[in-house]
Amino acid sequence: MPHAILLISCPDQKGITAAVTDFVFKRGGNILDAAQHADAESGAFFMRIEWAMAGFTVPRATISREFQPLAEKFKMSWELYFTDVPVKMAIFVSKQLHCLYDLLFRYRSGQLPHAKIELIISNHHDAEDLAHQSGIDFLHVPVLAETKRAAEEIQLAALQAKGVNLVVLARYHQILTDQFIQQYPNAIINIHHSFLPAFVGGSPYAQAHQKGVKLIGATSHYVIEALDQGPIIEQDAARISHRYAIHDLIEEGQDLERVVLYRAIRWHLERKVLCYGNKTVVFE
Amino acid sequence: MPHAILLISCPDQKGITAAVTDFVFKRGGNILDAAQHADAESGAFFMRIEWAMAGFTVPRATISREFQPLAEKFKMSWELYFTDVPVKMAIFVSKQLHCLYDLLFRYRSGQLPHAKIELIISNHHDAEDLAHQSGIDFLHVPVLAETKRAAEEIQLAALQAKGVNLVVLARYHQILTDQFIQQYPNAIINIHHSFLPAFVGGSPYAQAHQKGVKLIGATSHYVIEALDQGPIIEQDAARISHRYAIHDLIEEGQDLERVVLYRAIRWHLERKVLCYGNKTVVFE
Amino acid sequence: MPHAILLISCPDQKGITAAVTDFVFKRGGNILDAAQHADAESGAFFMRIEWAMAGFTVPRATISREFQPLAEKFKMSWELYFTDVPVKMAIFVSKQLHCLYDLLFRYRSGQLPHAKIELIISNHHDAEDLAHQSGIDFLHVPVLAETKRAAEEIQLAALQAKGVNLVVLARYHQILTDQFIQQYPNAIINIHHSFLPAFVGGSPYAQAHQKGVKLIGATSHYVIEALDQGPIIEQDAARISHRYAIHDLIEEGQDLERVVLYRAIRWHLERKVLCYGNKTVVFE
Amino acid sequence: MPHAILLISCPDQKGITAAVTDFVFKRGGNILDAAQHADAESGAFFMRIEWAMAGFTVPRATISREFQPLAEKFKMSWELYFTDVPVKMAIFVSKQLHCLYDLLFRYRSGQLPHAKIELIISNHHDAEDLAHQSGIDFLHVPVLAETKRAAEEIQLAALQAKGVNLVVLARYHQILTDQFIQQYPNAIINIHHSFLPAFVGGSPYAQAHQKGVKLIGATSHYVIEALDQGPIIEQDAARISHRYAIHDLIEEGQDLERVVLYRAIRWHLERKVLCYGNKTVVFE
Repeated sequence: MPHAILLISCPDQKGITAAVTDFVFKRGGNILDAAQHADAESGAFFMRIEWAMAGFTVPRATISREFQPLAEKFKMSWELYFTDVPVKMAIFVSKQLHCLYDLLFRYRSGQLPHAKIELIISNHHDAEDLAHQSGIDFLHVPVLAETKRAAEEIQLAALQAKGVNLVVLARYHQILTDQFIQQYPNAIINIHHSFLPAFVGGSPYAQAHQKGVKLIGATSHYVIEALDQGPIIEQDAARISHRYAIHDLIEEGQDLERVVLYRAIRWHLERKVLCYGNKTVVFE
Repeated sequence: MPHAILLISCPDQKGITAAVTDFVFKRGGNILDAAQHADAESGAFFMRIEWAMAGFTVPRATISREFQPLAEKFKMSWELYFTDVPVKMAIFVSKQLHCLYDLLFRYRSGQLPHAKIELIISNHHDAEDLAHQSGIDFLHVPVLAETKRAAEEIQLAALQAKGVNLVVLARYHQILTDQFIQQYPNAIINIHHSFLPAFVGGSPYAQAHQKGVKLIGATSHYVIEALDQGPIIEQDAARISHRYAIHDLIEEGQDLERVVLYRAIRWHLERKVLCYGNKTVVFE
Repeated sequence: MPHAILLISCPDQKGITAAVTDFVFKRGGNILDAAQHADAESGAFFMRIEWAMAGFTVPRATISREFQPLAEKFKMSWELYFTDVPVKMAIFVSKQLHCLYDLLFRYRSGQLPHAKIELIISNHHDAEDLAHQSGIDFLHVPVLAETKRAAEEIQLAALQAKGVNLVVLARYHQILTDQFIQQYPNAIINIHHSFLPAFVGGSPYAQAHQKGVKLIGATSHYVIEALDQGPIIEQDAARISHRYAIHDLIEEGQDLERVVLYRAIRWHLERKVLCYGNKTVVFE
Repeated sequence: MPHAILLISCPDQKGITAAVTDFVFKRGGNILDAAQHADAESGAFFMRIEWAMAGFTVPRATISREFQPLAEKFKMSWELYFTDVPVKMAIFVSKQLHCLYDLLFRYRSGQLPHAKIELIISNHHDAEDLAHQSGIDFLHVPVLAETKRAAEEIQLAALQAKGVNLVVLARYHQILTDQFIQQYPNAIINIHHSFLPAFVGGSPYAQAHQKGVKLIGATSHYVIEALDQGPIIEQDAARISHRYAIHDLIEEGQDLERVVLYRAIRWHLERKVLCYGNKTVVFE
């Protein structure tokens, strides 16, 4: 049986929680989860409420209209999702396949129940066999500095043809243009192989090795125009030592990257992530 | 300005969240936090709701009476707390002082704002100076197997005289009798120096060393009659290696114990812990 | 260029390190790594020394004979390995494929350079496609309680035909008989999906859920006759909460299992693990 | 019985380990621990060897002279220590006392057996009582921008009078001048309250909060002239969430700082840290 999920951001004031829960209850909704957060500094309020559609007296198509007066009263930004409508996902990848490989195994094992992987796009051919073995369409789009915009037009056309609404950069080593990014606000998730904001940009493991750090990290974040500056969804770190050569850092780091990227995607799919300013609320 | 905190356990059914938030809102309460959990297996529902008393139209003394009909309707067990009523705490300790020392520093630093440490009780004299330096009453109660009940009567009398409602066993190396424990249901917090349920009972570090484990742990839990079996509030673990002799395990473990015990106490003081069966819900 | 690795266990006494390093140096060996550990309790001494064979003046076949007098003098147990002789590995698996899948990806990516995976053996057919895609022989050996010994004879014959010297139980849900285990002393690595010694035996995640622990763990160990009691090679733990249903524990635990099993295998392949009594020295 | 510890850095070449172990053995030294590391990139070799002085045939005063030819042959930088010669330590602190408090407890508990804390120096009076309770000299040296050099002269005079050879900055909120730092090369250990190189400089928790990171860290490092750029000895990280206000970050971070600073000091005292370029080898 599907659930509805409502994500709300608005200025904090008395009565929001009560009003929203009351809205759901009066229409026969059994509230399965409700979480909220008030950010004391900015005065912003965030809420996530999930209820069973079984017994809910308002048809899906009408919920938004009925909710509108409440939303206006509290000046809410809000989004409404249903758990039986899968997120259509595309995965971009270059030559390193560990994150892709991991995601495909989880997908096959049922760990990404709210997603449908529509497409794998790469500027190389390394992922092609894996895509075919997994029965997922593969699109090879070579990218050169001078052809990047044209390549992105091809990519965007393919995404739109498939109705994709989540782009995952699973170690895709091309910087997207602002024009591309603006098509998917808070809907492109990247894995950066460092503990951001340390080691922005290329070769973070080489930077980490050079610096002699004792922990390495990985960061998944939404992509915005400023490189490696988007809202952080998840991070994790692992202990290393002077014995680790760069290739050991890379290998150790890959284990982090896989898990950190997966968690970010899962929380996004479960509609547990809200962005505000350059930060996220994650109702895990 | 004080807050009110309501902790609720009841059978899960439609409408609880809405009813409770509505109860608070209708009486002018600004909801600061609300969290809930439905345990699918047992069908139990748990809720914690915190609201500002400023502007709340019902005086403290009357809230319980007004809430009673709602509680009965949903068959709730419930507790109501106010953040300006400190928890009166006693700390029991034997010869190892690291947890006590840590708690006293946090207390002095303002990290335990909801507690008032009334008393330190020990079967040894090692903690006496520390208690006096901290300006806290110290009670020395020697315990022998044959005098344990008498000793506990002295301890209980002292606790009652001070109105203590939380007992912390900060490495107190005496097993409490059932009679003692029954005076403080879900109000005695122990730190056990292993990753329970591994290494129950005495000398867990020696057991861990003998077993050759690669991680050691610490566990804070409420004390029940069955030794080391009470509801677990918090656990953590740390990596060790073959190079660690037993005294290294002990030293490494003490760093865990301090943090794990502190977290359990803090969450208890913040009224974030609910027990059900032999488990806890922790709304951290 | 290959390296030689010498693993030594003996009673501790003065002069072992000097004698061994001198032995290597006098014969032109460039020592790349030397690590040692003296266990104060048992009085045992352990050493691992790795040197480049380039320039070493003694041919491989003769090293053992030349080393023998030194070994006898210090009453050493010792093993000699060469890094260009791969370990022949077989993987046993039942229906859950996450560990197998992970190992095969690492194998393909070059993360197991000292291994050659000869064979995948299963009592089910789930892993068959994956084996074939990876170009690795697959042997289906159904196991019933009354046919276990006969099944093991088939398994052992296949292992011997391939010259297998490391058996990995990557979530193989059959208990091996003592007769099987005795064929591979300290050469069968199992992944147990709990933080041993907690939750021995079947359904450890269900046991953990029932107990209400706040961390789950995974343990890789050598298999001995006593179930889940063999020397522990590696363990790790992850934080969970009351929100985790059993299937969430399982999913979270699988991420641990993959990494913990991989580390144990890698260290074994790198000849970094020495067993003594029921414990291990891991020169990571 | 005292041990000798020899720390060696030199260009890597064949025969170093054998020559050094042979040097010790020939003179009757029982080698208790030997560890080495060859840095493939720089071609540098590092070694730490520890042996029992009981039975060693060369008197302390003569060891250096006897070792000199070997050192010259291999172009070694080297240092020789004896475990019964305590490191004379001074602790600098400002107003936040958590690290100081922690170190003093460990000191009293015997966790810093190789140190003698000679002096606590502060630009404030907050630590004064604690110093006196611990029986340690306290020196108040106010620091203003325009008087910093004069203040440092007072500090240096006090350090020299006490023969201090390790300075610990346990949350000392003054930037030392180059002149001061040059008096204590690789002998000033600082705790920085972030995961360096992220959040260099002041208010790292505010920076972390602003950035919306999901982990916070702490870093202990040797102090060099470039602010927060010295060789990192130890780091650790802890998970946070959007629920953490800045003061929660600070509180959580303090638990990290205490442990990270302690580990760095302990390893320094045990002579397990070697610096090369801007990095460390830690033979933990």
